[in-house]
Amino acid sequence: MFLEAILHQPYGSFAFPVDGHTLRVRIRTKRDDVEKVTLLHGDRYQLPEFDTPLELKKVASDLLYDYYSGDLYSPTRRIRYTFFIEKGNLAFWYGDLGFSTDRKMAGDFQYPFINEQDLFTTPEWAKKGIVYQIFPERFFNGNPANDPKEVEEWGEKPTPDNFFGGDLEGITQKLPYLKDLGVNVLYLTPIFQSPSNHKYNTTDYYTVDPHFGDLETVKELVREAHEQGIRVIFDAVFNHCGADFFAFRDVLEKGEKSPYKDWFYIHDFPIVTNPHPNYETFAVDVWTMPKLKTSNPEVRDYLLKVARYWIEEAGIDGWRLDVANEVDHDFWREFRKAVKEANPEALIIGEIWHDASPWLEGDQYDSVMNYLFREALCDFFAKGTIGVRTFDARLAKARMKYRDQANFCMFNLIDSHDTERFLTASNEKEERLRLAAFFQMTYLGMPMIYYGTEIGMTGENDPDCRRTFEWDEEKQNLDLREYYKRLIAIRLQHAPLTHGDFRTLLADDLRNLYLYSRSYQGETMIMALHVGGKEERVDVAVPQTWKSANDLLSGERIPVADGKVRLTLKGYQGVILRGQ
Amino acid sequence: MFLEAILHQPYGSFAFPVDGHTLRVRIRTKRDDVEKVTLLHGDRYQLPEFDTPLELKKVASDLLYDYYSGDLYSPTRRIRYTFFIEKGNLAFWYGDLGFSTDRKMAGDFQYPFINEQDLFTTPEWAKKGIVYQIFPERFFNGNPANDPKEVEEWGEKPTPDNFFGGDLEGITQKLPYLKDLGVNVLYLTPIFQSPSNHKYNTTDYYTVDPHFGDLETVKELVREAHEQGIRVIFDAVFNHCGADFFAFRDVLEKGEKSPYKDWFYIHDFPIVTNPHPNYETFAVDVWTMPKLKTSNPEVRDYLLKVARYWIEEAGIDGWRLDVANEVDHDFWREFRKAVKEANPEALIIGEIWHDASPWLEGDQYDSVMNYLFREALCDFFAKGTIGVRTFDARLAKARMKYRDQANFCMFNLIDSHDTERFLTASNEKEERLRLAAFFQMTYLGMPMIYYGTEIGMTGENDPDCRRTFEWDEEKQNLDLREYYKRLIAIRLQHAPLTHGDFRTLLADDLRNLYLYSRSYQGETMIMALHVGGKEERVDVAVPQTWKSANDLLSGERIPVADGKVRLTLKGYQGVILRGQ
Repeated sequence: MFLEAILHQPYGSFAFPVDGHTLRVRIRTKRDDVEKVTLLHGDRYQLPEFDTPLELKKVASDLLYDYYSGDLYSPTRRIRYTFFIEKGNLAFWYGDLGFSTDRKMAGDFQYPFINEQDLFTTPEWAKKGIVYQIFPERFFNGNPANDPKEVEEWGEKPTPDNFFGGDLEGITQKLPYLKDLGVNVLYLTPIFQSPSNHKYNTTDYYTVDPHFGDLETVKELVREAHEQGIRVIFDAVFNHCGADFFAFRDVLEKGEKSPYKDWFYIHDFPIVTNPHPNYETFAVDVWTMPKLKTSNPEVRDYLLKVARYWIEEAGIDGWRLDVANEVDHDFWREFRKAVKEANPEALIIGEIWHDASPWLEGDQYDSVMNYLFREALCDFFAKGTIGVRTFDARLAKARMKYRDQANFCMFNLIDSHDTERFLTASNEKEERLRLAAFFQMTYLGMPMIYYGTEIGMTGENDPDCRRTFEWDEEKQNLDLREYYKRLIAIRLQHAPLTHGDFRTLLADDLRNLYLYSRSYQGETMIMALHVGGKEERVDVAVPQTWKSANDLLSGERIPVADGKVRLTLKGYQGVILRGQ
Repeated sequence: MFLEAILHQPYGSFAFPVDGHTLRVRIRTKRDDVEKVTLLHGDRYQLPEFDTPLELKKVASDLLYDYYSGDLYSPTRRIRYTFFIEKGNLAFWYGDLGFSTDRKMAGDFQYPFINEQDLFTTPEWAKKGIVYQIFPERFFNGNPANDPKEVEEWGEKPTPDNFFGGDLEGITQKLPYLKDLGVNVLYLTPIFQSPSNHKYNTTDYYTVDPHFGDLETVKELVREAHEQGIRVIFDAVFNHCGADFFAFRDVLEKGEKSPYKDWFYIHDFPIVTNPHPNYETFAVDVWTMPKLKTSNPEVRDYLLKVARYWIEEAGIDGWRLDVANEVDHDFWREFRKAVKEANPEALIIGEIWHDASPWLEGDQYDSVMNYLFREALCDFFAKGTIGVRTFDARLAKARMKYRDQANFCMFNLIDSHDTERFLTASNEKEERLRLAAFFQMTYLGMPMIYYGTEIGMTGENDPDCRRTFEWDEEKQNLDLREYYKRLIAIRLQHAPLTHGDFRTLLADDLRNLYLYSRSYQGETMIMALHVGGKEERVDVAVPQTWKSANDLLSGERIPVADGKVRLTLKGYQGVILRGQ
């Protein structure tokens, strides 16, 4: 047994309450190295003789490790526990003091008290979310009267600076399209007043950009969306503002005498903007995006009011947080309180491309834009630079980084306004995009569709990925759109796909086969993916209760024999099996 | 190389800023398994070609792992880093995605931005703290006029319920004794109105217990202490109150109609106190200690006002938090803000007996009562149930659990009002207590002396460990007291002992020898401990600059030959070497 590989921490993603009396515990061991992990737990103030054993289940594996997990129930909420790890004749206790054959010498881990106040709860609706990301300037021009002075013709090539006239009325008018697709959450990149087409340099957080609409247009959009069962999420750009933001303009004008000089990180006066600003900005020397000093109580109050305002005034359902990882944790804690007070069902999603653990402890965000997911799907499905095992391992690792409350409401994207389009990444191989969409729609977390990906839009990285939506159905890939629609419908009809546990069944690098299941309340569904061109056969063990299996995509019924179904998978085929 | 044993997390105790531009990074590897660990780091928005290498140093080892660490400086505070781990011809990159011989495939760890607001700062004065814990009822009776009705004679046997008349005036009167010993921080167990002798069941958080004194007596004590350079820390019992607390009394009287019914966790009405209370209490069914609902904003406000009041009104220097681990994190975050606002130099110490990582992230406490330290010292020095290697490993592990900001202001106790006395634990072997005190005074963190341990007091677990202080010098162990005084004086005179890094030099189980060093700003001191009865010789490599070594305890000068000193250690001897 490789003791050195065994890891548990009595906090973070290794020990977290899922309700007031239940602690979910995970432990990591070297892959294929141990046979059985049992948890012995009891009340902190009771003698060990009253302890309860709980056998943990292997819930995930990555290339190096297995992860075991179980839910322990504590009537008193005061928890003490020790692991007992077995392999053949070997057995060790593992606790706060380390490993020992003697339980007392190993010590106990402690989760001293499950306090309601510290419970991590994420909105239940999010589990069933199908998110559609819109870059408003490029989705639909619903009102040419509010267009910027110079707009390109719809369909022309986007540059960093040009405009096309897309607006909020355009989105409202196209809600039926989105409804038809199956979307139930809209995420809009920024809509507040700003001189740019992306609007990530905010001029006024309280004003809708006049080229997009106004307060009434926003309210109308949210109202209409809600009527159709679609929630709306806005983009909070709180790491930095635009150079035209009133406070920064004041500092530019009055220098050290400005009452707003402490709203920013200004190194010295007079202010220099070019070529190297002497104040902190987003990224490197982006002088038009001065970093906001969110530790200043005035700035904090200002931004928290903004956060509440749009929830209360326009009724939005959440915030996506831009450059969320560069703003202080303390600010986000206050932000969460303000937002959840305004709407306890609001969803908070951070933009974080890397391990987001410190932001997903329950006191800050509900979830993040899952770029770890996107990169794995891109490497595996689009580019083929990693095999099935590595793909599966990267997802398992990402899942085990976070608490399940977050895992089930991740924004699972495959492309966005900040990446090349998936179809471009995959060298325009549609079958690869289809597999990625298939996976997205059968994995846990909220699938996020970047506008137009469902109709086969392509595009290199920013600004090319921000092309205008192709509304001419003759130029849309209608088959692909139908495929998305079908996948979405299947997902929403089957609770295992939205609420179910994920288990890897087969990750076969040589045959490019990937099999996994999702299980919820006794119902299991099995997915099989073939990421290669040749036909492949595979026998799949199915639950005992299945008399036959139905592939929900093709409608084909497959008989069960000896507890197995024999699948014949064509190149790049995916099947979604449901038992009957 | 055992990749599975390698661990880094870009947060917690593995990556924490020590100032606005410096990130301290730690990584764990299997013990004696790797040869070199280098960190390559750069700005998140810069290309890797600008990256800077930083070779990490091995800073600690436990039985299974080595820990490497280094401080990386970031001019922009936006940090990206990858490890390069070498052993012979093998070398791997290690990053957010895992291990790879290809840097890009390993991915980067990210510490996106060091925000001032999130910096963990602990009071600088704490590093030089020598803490003395007083159980006021048993220290000294300075004013017999305020005694409880029935007091035992001073020196009689303590029971769970009896009284002896100790009070705050008694402490004030004995400040010269404490000053003489070298103490500069007093920690008093609770002094607020309460029917018990320990006062952990508070009746009124705003009133000093009349048997202890009043507001004026407290002010007098703090003023006098401050004049003598001694800080004062009170005990905050916020997990629960006493049954006589006004709010609980109101609920007992009015039941469901009480406006305070939501101040507690009451399962149903009418309230039952015996034999099984139908409300949550401290520990199991301690009906006199109802648990306070700290998630209720009214309770929270009430307690935070108490916290501020005693800082502002009496000028105390910090709070020790009782049963700190069972109160919600959210409360402690607000508590920290309130306390640090009232006095930025105040110290916050939680009572946590186990891994306290979740409370020591910088947003809650500064430190904890270091029971992990106490248990290691008890097992090693007092009981001899573990050897030198295990002792050293347990301390290393505890150190690596926490950020250094906390490590340097831990309350390093060897006994307390909640444990048997150390001298009792060691079967009254004074030489073992002396070694423990020696270690306490030469280790990092604040040594905490439980009143009377320095004069040789004994006692079994509570209530026996709460005997009255022996003021008759003829009955005190004056040699021991002198030894403590000498150790304290040495500690306070030498910055390496209070501020220095700790390194293990030798942990020899067979000869019972333990050698370690403390280094600060180029000055190193070396400690040698012999935890056995036989005389032992050992050669110790010393810094090149040393011409001879001076044992600060015995005054003996030892010559340096070939860069070494030869020590002859008598049974249970400890030496503190300083170079000359």
